[in-house]
Amino acid sequence: MNEAQLEMEEKLALLKLYLEGEKIEDFRSEFLSLHVYEQSQYYLSLTQEERQQIYFYLSPKEMADMFEILEEDEESVEIYLKEMDPQYAADMLSEMYTDNAVDILNQLDKIDLRKYLNMMTIDNADEIKELLHYEDETAGSIMTTEYVSVAATQTISEAMHILKIKALDAETIYYVYVIDTAEKLVGVISLRDLITRGDDELVSDVMGDRPISVNVADDQNDVAKTIRDYNFLAVPVIDKEEHLLGIITVDDIIDVIDEEAASDYSGLAGVDVGEQSENPFVAASKRLPWLITLLFLGMGTATLISRYEVLVSEASILAVFISLITGTAGNAGTQSLAVAVRKLADNDDKNRNFTRLVISEVLTGVITGLITGITIFLVIGIWKHNFILGFVIGTAMLFAIIVANLAGSLIPILMDRIGFDPAVASGPFISTLSDLTSVLIYFNIAAYFMNFFI
Amino acid sequence: MNEAQLEMEEKLALLKLYLEGEKIEDFRSEFLSLHVYEQSQYYLSLTQEERQQIYFYLSPKEMADMFEILEEDEESVEIYLKEMDPQYAADMLSEMYTDNAVDILNQLDKIDLRKYLNMMTIDNADEIKELLHYEDETAGSIMTTEYVSVAATQTISEAMHILKIKALDAETIYYVYVIDTAEKLVGVISLRDLITRGDDELVSDVMGDRPISVNVADDQNDVAKTIRDYNFLAVPVIDKEEHLLGIITVDDIIDVIDEEAASDYSGLAGVDVGEQSENPFVAASKRLPWLITLLFLGMGTATLISRYEVLVSEASILAVFISLITGTAGNAGTQSLAVAVRKLADNDDKNRNFTRLVISEVLTGVITGLITGITIFLVIGIWKHNFILGFVIGTAMLFAIIVANLAGSLIPILMDRIGFDPAVASGPFISTLSDLTSVLIYFNIAAYFMNFFI
Repeated sequence: MNEAQLEMEEKLALLKLYLEGEKIEDFRSEFLSLHVYEQSQYYLSLTQEERQQIYFYLSPKEMADMFEILEEDEESVEIYLKEMDPQYAADMLSEMYTDNAVDILNQLDKIDLRKYLNMMTIDNADEIKELLHYEDETAGSIMTTEYVSVAATQTISEAMHILKIKALDAETIYYVYVIDTAEKLVGVISLRDLITRGDDELVSDVMGDRPISVNVADDQNDVAKTIRDYNFLAVPVIDKEEHLLGIITVDDIIDVIDEEAASDYSGLAGVDVGEQSENPFVAASKRLPWLITLLFLGMGTATLISRYEVLVSEASILAVFISLITGTAGNAGTQSLAVAVRKLADNDDKNRNFTRLVISEVLTGVITGLITGITIFLVIGIWKHNFILGFVIGTAMLFAIIVANLAGSLIPILMDRIGFDPAVASGPFISTLSDLTSVLIYFNIAAYFMNFFI
Repeated sequence: MNEAQLEMEEKLALLKLYLEGEKIEDFRSEFLSLHVYEQSQYYLSLTQEERQQIYFYLSPKEMADMFEILEEDEESVEIYLKEMDPQYAADMLSEMYTDNAVDILNQLDKIDLRKYLNMMTIDNADEIKELLHYEDETAGSIMTTEYVSVAATQTISEAMHILKIKALDAETIYYVYVIDTAEKLVGVISLRDLITRGDDELVSDVMGDRPISVNVADDQNDVAKTIRDYNFLAVPVIDKEEHLLGIITVDDIIDVIDEEAASDYSGLAGVDVGEQSENPFVAASKRLPWLITLLFLGMGTATLISRYEVLVSEASILAVFISLITGTAGNAGTQSLAVAVRKLADNDDKNRNFTRLVISEVLTGVITGLITGITIFLVIGIWKHNFILGFVIGTAMLFAIIVANLAGSLIPILMDRIGFDPAVASGPFISTLSDLTSVLIYFNIAAYFMNFFI
């Protein structure tokens, strides 16, 4: 790929020259020879002045092609839009696939949104308005209306004719959807089937007549699951009456999968890893809510320990092992949590496995607790020549781990039940919570054996 | 989707009936009317006896179509293979796309592998052998050799003719790759372009002549990045001399993205969340290595505290706040770690941002440390009427958090540098490590102010 990189560097240098020299035609031919992704990378590297120059060099349609790819990652799209002449921006949005235009428009305030919609043709504006009202993270919010549809009564060659006409506008032409006169989805044909069949065959004879679809109100993660399971390149979106409303393509689903993975990861860490800011104040402001909340939960643990202060002052050796027990239980609880969250996400019918999941985690806790408990019993027994102390620490560890596993599996289930995303129950939360239960277990057991330590 | 589910239930009930009644033809037509994903779900629900029955009902090709989808998730494919007549299994593997057959064969031991290869035609066996030697997680290991290629000198109608012939075998026909006489990749055309262009135009005039490709030795995550960035449905794989070796399709990339997300998540939690076993012994055996390792790291912390036992016995109030300081620092460190791991994964040129990343994390630590430190200073000052104690705890927390953030960002960078996946540095590891540093900081500060506590 080194040669390709060099070639790319050269192209970028050329573009810079052409822009400085205001050589519009040279710039256009070089720029348009790039893949839209490369165009977008180049665009992102420009200064505001340079960007404003190229708005005059490129048509709204050409800018739209690049913005299709840009919008996925870029938070500052709003700024770019405001730099443009409003009519140019509105034209560009009209030229984009509806789903991508809607993504951008959703980032704007209502006044700007209305301004751009008013500058579009009524058809374009209506199409966009229709998509704007779907709730975030539903199939409706990520679908596009640029698909190819034919009637079941048409022949393959008629269908191919329609396809060729729509090929320039449609987001995918690799599936053709078959609808009846009421616009209900009745079948699907892949382009692969279309080109290998005889021209005179009827669409109804060739099509798959039990098309897999998703409902417009479905969660986008369920759509992702369908596309992933069936290895689809796109899936049709229907309403309750089975009317075909749009399609969702695999590239948008990859974004959904990425988003979901980042959000699960963020949940586990108790921080939004999407936060790409290197400004420490911004970063700190996003992390402090969890830290401060957990600080107060941790104060609960401190209060609990302070009740046993007399115990500690009589046998200071007990203080030595607080962090070992809370730490180990916290680690076990975090493991449990992660497994439980993933199992909840993977299973369709969550109800069935709740009890089994918790039992399995508690039993796992018993086994890991026994083994770490016995290990620490032996280590302390030998190290401190005190097997009773070892027994106390080992037993406390066993029960602390069991309780941590119970919390680690039960809490995401409860969150799921009351309608929250179980992935929000973070590792830090579980380990801070298990600090509390671990300390309680530890000092209660220790108190029982107090006579042996003094 | 409820109606669709009911229909599905009915179909499954029918299949069961046909199987029991040994109605081969009825079974075949019902089974083959299902989508391959549905076939695979049905197959997975069968008993061994039932499975062995359907090996006689379905041809190796029909079984292969279903196995293409099965292999992604299923660990027990090996068992299924062994149930089949060996020649049937070999025929089925021959009928599969090479990348999927290779995935399955890679799970077998060498003797079985050789057995099946010997039963295939030489061509098929050679194709598979070629892919078998690519290293795991490289582009070569996930590519398939079933693509469509044409010459630049052919016309569009000639290309369409080739496409139609290959349409049944190729894994995707939506991109046609253009090669020269030395089989070097020189261009690419999408089927969309093919069907909208005139029959007599030359491929060389229509094709994109700077095709984006990946190298056969590239990491599969880099391939995923390319497909994702460019919104591709497939990407060609070349060797150093630019010979076209195969293609990688977007459905395989979705699996790569899922795998990667699961592995990052597992890394952060210190447990393999792919572990779907509900057997607590299996689950425990996978979690214990981390737990026991961290137990010994935790023993280090305990040893450290035991050095300050005299301090604790003189001022037992110090013990009360151990877990608060270690816990909060551990939480901050986990946040830092997660952000650092994701930033390392997102950035291509990792070298540039190392120092900035660490500085940004440390500064974030200073700010979060100051705010949590001041909060706890006030809370303890007011609660315990002891602002000096509050000052000690607050200051210890400030420095413990800074050090935890330093460790959280530095350790994944170091792991990356020495060639490990930074995602393996788990949250539990960072929080156990920061227990140690936090305790050290805490007791050193406390020792300095000792006179005030006794």
